[in-house]
Amino acid sequence: MKILGIDPGLRTTGFGIIHKQGTKLSYLASGTIKTQEADLPSRLKTILAGVSEIIATYRPDCAAIEKVFVNVNPQSTLLLGQARGAAICALVHADLAVSEYTALQIKKAVVGQGRAQKHQMQDMVQRLLLLSGAPGPDAADALGVAICHAHSGDHLATLGELSPGLAKKGLRMRGGRLVG
Amino acid sequence: MKILGIDPGLRTTGFGIIHKQGTKLSYLASGTIKTQEADLPSRLKTILAGVSEIIATYRPDCAAIEKVFVNVNPQSTLLLGQARGAAICALVHADLAVSEYTALQIKKAVVGQGRAQKHQMQDMVQRLLLLSGAPGPDAADALGVAICHAHSGDHLATLGELSPGLAKKGLRMRGGRLVG
Repeated sequence: MKILGIDPGLRTTGFGIIHKQGTKLSYLASGTIKTQEADLPSRLKTILAGVSEIIATYRPDCAAIEKVFVNVNPQSTLLLGQARGAAICALVHADLAVSEYTALQIKKAVVGQGRAQKHQMQDMVQRLLLLSGAPGPDAADALGVAICHAHSGDHLATLGELSPGLAKKGLRMRGGRLVG
Repeated sequence: MKILGIDPGLRTTGFGIIHKQGTKLSYLASGTIKTQEADLPSRLKTILAGVSEIIATYRPDCAAIEKVFVNVNPQSTLLLGQARGAAICALVHADLAVSEYTALQIKKAVVGQGRAQKHQMQDMVQRLLLLSGAPGPDAADALGVAICHAHSGDHLATLGELSPGLAKKGLRMRGGRLVG
């Protein structure tokens, strides 16, 4: 299963694709989509086109995206929301199931504790995916949300094995929680 | 020229299409896109698909969207931002030029003063477009932003006539302002 992780932002959107075989995770690709246009619609178009191109190139099976914090500056919150909306549009347009995780959930899943610093996330992503160097902070966050989703999937698989009846009913992970 | 106006919202997105011939404006269509899904990605998908369907059906030449206010509740601001991002994605995906106007600009253009109430907007939209009844508040706001864009276009046309050199340089309206 190939998982696409997204760390949304108006100026820089991080992306990371990992491959999950059983409990083994491996690195496929990562990077950033940068927007430099002056007007908002053009920036959103760049994010939409960029994420769509990544999906067309790597053909992930599902996607996970970071739940963003509301900023102290309401105008920044509004801009970030629109950027996140554009990234999600590219995912749902490609009919990918989208799971959402908070920064706390991602840090716990990757580093083991919720108060992890940026560089700790980069270090742990490098170790977990056996990379020769640490990815940049935005790419590391995107790979982190993909790893977080891979781990959450383990719980679902376990539950499916324990109670196949429930699994048959079409239980799904959503926002890191099981939904009916 | 056919203008698509959008009043973005997470639960209800208003849309309105008007036809502009010279200084004459006529009504083509209006309505709302409602989302009732439980999760955010599905709601954004409904907005993206809904606006895309309207574009495919009415084939507007350009689009105008209301600039939203930041809400007192930051979480609501974030949600509204994502909904607006989804609507803009549908517009730019169809290669439509997108202009943005504040509520103040729209009210001034339609009602004549910036402190207009909802029902005044509905009344004036009904009169300006010679409708047999008042459109709903969301559809009226969407028709209002289309009307506002039609009026802004007048200034551009006038400028073009007065100084064709400038017009040739590719001046465009953006956010209600002329940009180079």
